[in-house]
Amino acid sequence: MSKLTDVPKRILIGRALRSDRLGETLLPKRVALPVFASDPLSSVAYAPGEVLLVLSIAGLSAYHFSPWIAVAVVVLMFTVVASYRQNVHAYPSGGGDYEVATTNLGPKAGLTVASALLVDYVLTVAVSISSGIENLGSAIPFVVENKVACAIGVIVLLTLMNLRGVRESGTLFAIPTYVFVAGVFLMIAWGAFRGVVLGDDMRAPTADFEIKPEHPGLAGFALVFLLLRAFSSGCAALTGVEAISNGVPGFRKPKSRNAATTLALMGLLAVTMFCGIIALAAATDVRMAENPAKDLVHDGVPLGPDYVQDPVISQVAEAVFGHGSFLFVVLAAATALVLFLAANTAYNGFPLLGAILAQDRYLPRQLHTRGDRLAFSNGIVLLAGAAALLVVIYGADSTRLIQLYIVGVFVSFTLSQTGMVRHWNRLLAVEKDPAARRHMIRSRAINAFGAFFTGLVLVVVLLTKFTHGAWVALLGMCIFYATMTAIRRHYDRVAEEIAAPDTPSEDTVRPSRVHSVVLISKVHRPTLRALAYAKLLRSDTLEALSVNVDADETKALREEWERRGIDVPLKVLDSPYREVTRPVIEYVKSLRAQSPRDVVSVIIPEYVVGHWYEHLLHNQSALRLKGRLLFTPGVMVTSVPYQLESSEAAKLRARRRQDWAAPGSARRGPAERAKETPPRT
Amino acid sequence: MSKLTDVPKRILIGRALRSDRLGETLLPKRVALPVFASDPLSSVAYAPGEVLLVLSIAGLSAYHFSPWIAVAVVVLMFTVVASYRQNVHAYPSGGGDYEVATTNLGPKAGLTVASALLVDYVLTVAVSISSGIENLGSAIPFVVENKVACAIGVIVLLTLMNLRGVRESGTLFAIPTYVFVAGVFLMIAWGAFRGVVLGDDMRAPTADFEIKPEHPGLAGFALVFLLLRAFSSGCAALTGVEAISNGVPGFRKPKSRNAATTLALMGLLAVTMFCGIIALAAATDVRMAENPAKDLVHDGVPLGPDYVQDPVISQVAEAVFGHGSFLFVVLAAATALVLFLAANTAYNGFPLLGAILAQDRYLPRQLHTRGDRLAFSNGIVLLAGAAALLVVIYGADSTRLIQLYIVGVFVSFTLSQTGMVRHWNRLLAVEKDPAARRHMIRSRAINAFGAFFTGLVLVVVLLTKFTHGAWVALLGMCIFYATMTAIRRHYDRVAEEIAAPDTPSEDTVRPSRVHSVVLISKVHRPTLRALAYAKLLRSDTLEALSVNVDADETKALREEWERRGIDVPLKVLDSPYREVTRPVIEYVKSLRAQSPRDVVSVIIPEYVVGHWYEHLLHNQSALRLKGRLLFTPGVMVTSVPYQLESSEAAKLRARRRQDWAAPGSARRGPAERAKETPPRT
Repeated sequence: MSKLTDVPKRILIGRALRSDRLGETLLPKRVALPVFASDPLSSVAYAPGEVLLVLSIAGLSAYHFSPWIAVAVVVLMFTVVASYRQNVHAYPSGGGDYEVATTNLGPKAGLTVASALLVDYVLTVAVSISSGIENLGSAIPFVVENKVACAIGVIVLLTLMNLRGVRESGTLFAIPTYVFVAGVFLMIAWGAFRGVVLGDDMRAPTADFEIKPEHPGLAGFALVFLLLRAFSSGCAALTGVEAISNGVPGFRKPKSRNAATTLALMGLLAVTMFCGIIALAAATDVRMAENPAKDLVHDGVPLGPDYVQDPVISQVAEAVFGHGSFLFVVLAAATALVLFLAANTAYNGFPLLGAILAQDRYLPRQLHTRGDRLAFSNGIVLLAGAAALLVVIYGADSTRLIQLYIVGVFVSFTLSQTGMVRHWNRLLAVEKDPAARRHMIRSRAINAFGAFFTGLVLVVVLLTKFTHGAWVALLGMCIFYATMTAIRRHYDRVAEEIAAPDTPSEDTVRPSRVHSVVLISKVHRPTLRALAYAKLLRSDTLEALSVNVDADETKALREEWERRGIDVPLKVLDSPYREVTRPVIEYVKSLRAQSPRDVVSVIIPEYVVGHWYEHLLHNQSALRLKGRLLFTPGVMVTSVPYQLESSEAAKLRARRRQDWAAPGSARRGPAERAKETPPRT
Repeated sequence: MSKLTDVPKRILIGRALRSDRLGETLLPKRVALPVFASDPLSSVAYAPGEVLLVLSIAGLSAYHFSPWIAVAVVVLMFTVVASYRQNVHAYPSGGGDYEVATTNLGPKAGLTVASALLVDYVLTVAVSISSGIENLGSAIPFVVENKVACAIGVIVLLTLMNLRGVRESGTLFAIPTYVFVAGVFLMIAWGAFRGVVLGDDMRAPTADFEIKPEHPGLAGFALVFLLLRAFSSGCAALTGVEAISNGVPGFRKPKSRNAATTLALMGLLAVTMFCGIIALAAATDVRMAENPAKDLVHDGVPLGPDYVQDPVISQVAEAVFGHGSFLFVVLAAATALVLFLAANTAYNGFPLLGAILAQDRYLPRQLHTRGDRLAFSNGIVLLAGAAALLVVIYGADSTRLIQLYIVGVFVSFTLSQTGMVRHWNRLLAVEKDPAARRHMIRSRAINAFGAFFTGLVLVVVLLTKFTHGAWVALLGMCIFYATMTAIRRHYDRVAEEIAAPDTPSEDTVRPSRVHSVVLISKVHRPTLRALAYAKLLRSDTLEALSVNVDADETKALREEWERRGIDVPLKVLDSPYREVTRPVIEYVKSLRAQSPRDVVSVIIPEYVVGHWYEHLLHNQSALRLKGRLLFTPGVMVTSVPYQLESSEAAKLRARRRQDWAAPGSARRGPAERAKETPPRT
């Protein structure tokens, strides 16, 4: 049993696990739900508000369309959930939309999905943190007064946490997510009870405001366009639904079935919360406007630039629970926390997707290695930097950021569902069993409807949001796409260049002999060790090579060589300019020129030190020489390390670093799945 | 003959020389004078003003002490020049004050001198550039209005020039220095002619101002103290005199004699210019004050903070030549240019001294190599950064910076002259020839007087300037001293640790066998080459090692291995977490554990690419693995490079970089001198 003092730590970061025990951390449904659903569930904190905000453009009268928009979002949510339940069963390997699109629609579609998802991760961080700050600000005014600074602070905090490798733990996610869900349900139930049974007149803090419509009396096509725009904003509730399809390997068995159940549960919770909040907002007369300073009017006077518009969820909570009440504060805190956790999922998803893309050589290979701290760090810093940039540019205003958001998600939805239709078509072409065929035809119908509906929404989103900011997201996708294509092209070109020929060519002609050259500066333990090792290798010739940069030192070296009777010939190169690199390179080249088919093996004694500043004091000429030798053909360069006492420190540091947990390891599932991955086409 | 278009370039940067022809660039006296004397000569641009400035504290009446202070400075200058003429003859190797102090007074004194000189180089840059900007500002008001920005701009420009390795050329120095000297002499002559022969009443622009003394009626000890302070400020004229003693190897033969003559010439020029300017300032009624805004009064009204006090030299030039006249502008430009060249000498002197200190292991060894671009670059950036910091802190105000300046110079003067006295004592103890003895006794007397006088000045400077800023210079010296002591201690500790034992110990026990392991990821040209090279080495065992990070790839590797019939056994390590480093390290350790006296040779095929961004895409796991292997005892790590086509670009770049000329190479003299250096005690 762990000690009592360990409990808070265990709650915060979960049980510490060595990475070779990672296989044991399979997620039960009750933990998987909060881990994967914090992103989609948290979006009900801002999606309803966005709907009202857009509607307000046509004035208060347009608010009565909000239930219809809610219905449309619910239908879409069920469609998407139903579609992804098919994905989860068909592709249990966790490749998600990228895998589905690549396998069924080809690498370009796959890369498009990947670019869209990468952009989406950046936006998840920016939107969730901005919205979290706004929710926290409804309880703590200081936070909203210093919105950008606080948002950047949270980004920095999450970045540091993830760089240090805080292990993702189910508990960390479970508590705030369940508190949030329970709080919202309690609010809906208590609000319904007060309104319907007690007949209380609950009023939101903005209930007395009037809305000055920007386009009063909108009708016909313009009104339809506005309703579509409001619907697009409401679709923010769907972001993150695809996360579960990336996380199937992390579930307990039966993986696919558990994942599908979790998906259904998540959909149900999300729509109930979304509709409940929309209904409560209508019942408590919440008033929101796109430009509250100008368009919200109180007693005939516009509210002015100092007015801060609280999110719908906190206005409703205020109306139901009362301003400053305990439950109001708890819900605000839980909402903010869930939104920050949602941002954290992007920190986990980004390297996960990066690893899969690296496997297909669209990103540097080292991203594929689990636990390559440096590679992950670069990815995390890239993600955080891009999100911070957006937060600063858009003033941590969730409403403005959401305009950029949904494009990526729906690009990925649409391509993935289209891919699923192809998937079923391919299977149906060979499947004979009538029961299986029926099942497949049903699945295909669901996916086809999903593809059609999400495609339609994508078009609507693009049409209604392009000028409002969606173009930024598209630009980001293009940049990712171009970069990844270039990296893949580079790898392909190199692979072609280095491909082993089937027929023996000049490359495979055996080199005939090897000349070994040990570089010597002084006679000391490292050089003696290097000489001893070099002798073991039994090359055709062996000589010691020194560069005369100081006549006295060279003389001392020759004498010491004689005195000790070292049985390796010592050759000294002249270097009037005290250079080391050039004479050695030229000597090696001259050896090669004498006998071009021979190989020169250059053996360099090297000190191993423990601190970076010590490194500045040693090995610099050796490093430079090695760098230059690598460009010389027909050479092999050998380091014979001599570990100084201080190197122990570095050894410990390296060992600690290796036990580091990469972000996203929990949802990546056990490592064995690498073997289950079906080969890509 | 060179083309006509080459002429401007040749004037600007001198004939392009390959570094192996550096030996030809010996300096004739007429070129050596401007190269070495730009620093001391340029100081007459600010030293006379500093004297007047300090005197003004006691009021205008104190100005009549200025000739006496000039006389004191002249005596000091002759003393120092006479002393250094002894140094130049006794130590022709160019080690300068550092060598003299180390040889005769021990390493601690030498290191003190070195620290003082390093601080001095930083201050030379800061003071010269600030003063240059002030001189330029007397002709171009914009420059002085944006003093700090312009000064930083010049620092950046000089830094970039030196980083790019613009070769120091005699012509570059000669033209502005001779124009400056000629201009000052013309001004003195023309001023004397106008004043004495024509009887003109020349009036400086500040002649009508009155000085409100900060301490009126100063007398007794306080007055003496003030006069000493004024003298200390005037001693700024002596900075840089020691430069020639560092540059003897750069002179044509007879080196020492030519250097001594140049030194005398320089001293003569400097004192004439210094006295002439002081005299002209008195004749034209120049008024300067330490706080001109408050203490300079015109028609009973203080001038206020907007008043910019021009340097003495430009005020005198204005009085003699007339404001805005051609000669006035030419002199202002030449003054500024000479001051910037003086700053540039610090960029050359810093790496030169660094190389000598590196030879004695007080600084990283790579500084010792001529033309190690990276090492020089670090030194140059350090110098520029420190100077820029001082410029910003002191608002590019040469008067405030000069308070820090002179300490270092006089520390170095005093220790060097004391060392010279010891030097002659040592020689006299063995010398029998009466003529030689007479000569030595005379030299010793000169150096003894020099040591006494400069020591006295050092005490005066410390007493009068400590609180005005000299403490900053002392702090800087302490930091350099401590750092260099720590580096030396580190090198000594390592040298002790790695010293080869005279009796065979466990270290020299021959390892018995070597196991070679070739790391394989795929079968391609680089791995085939590595295998072929590994076979040549005839180690006791040879196997190929692969890490299974992807089951399919491993299967394909095994099949390819079979198909090609490669006659090296292939061992595959399991790696459930897709790590590469850990399994290999553990395997190597297990080999060592089985037979501890054996050596493991790990052979890694490596791609060589041409661009840094390509490097991000390759070799990252190889690099990390190599880094970790170096910490494992009993291992040698061999890279077998495979040059990709793009590596050609990097090869060319490296070759270009090697032909780079390090700053200070001209004054460092030909490389052969390394052999002439007498062994240090």
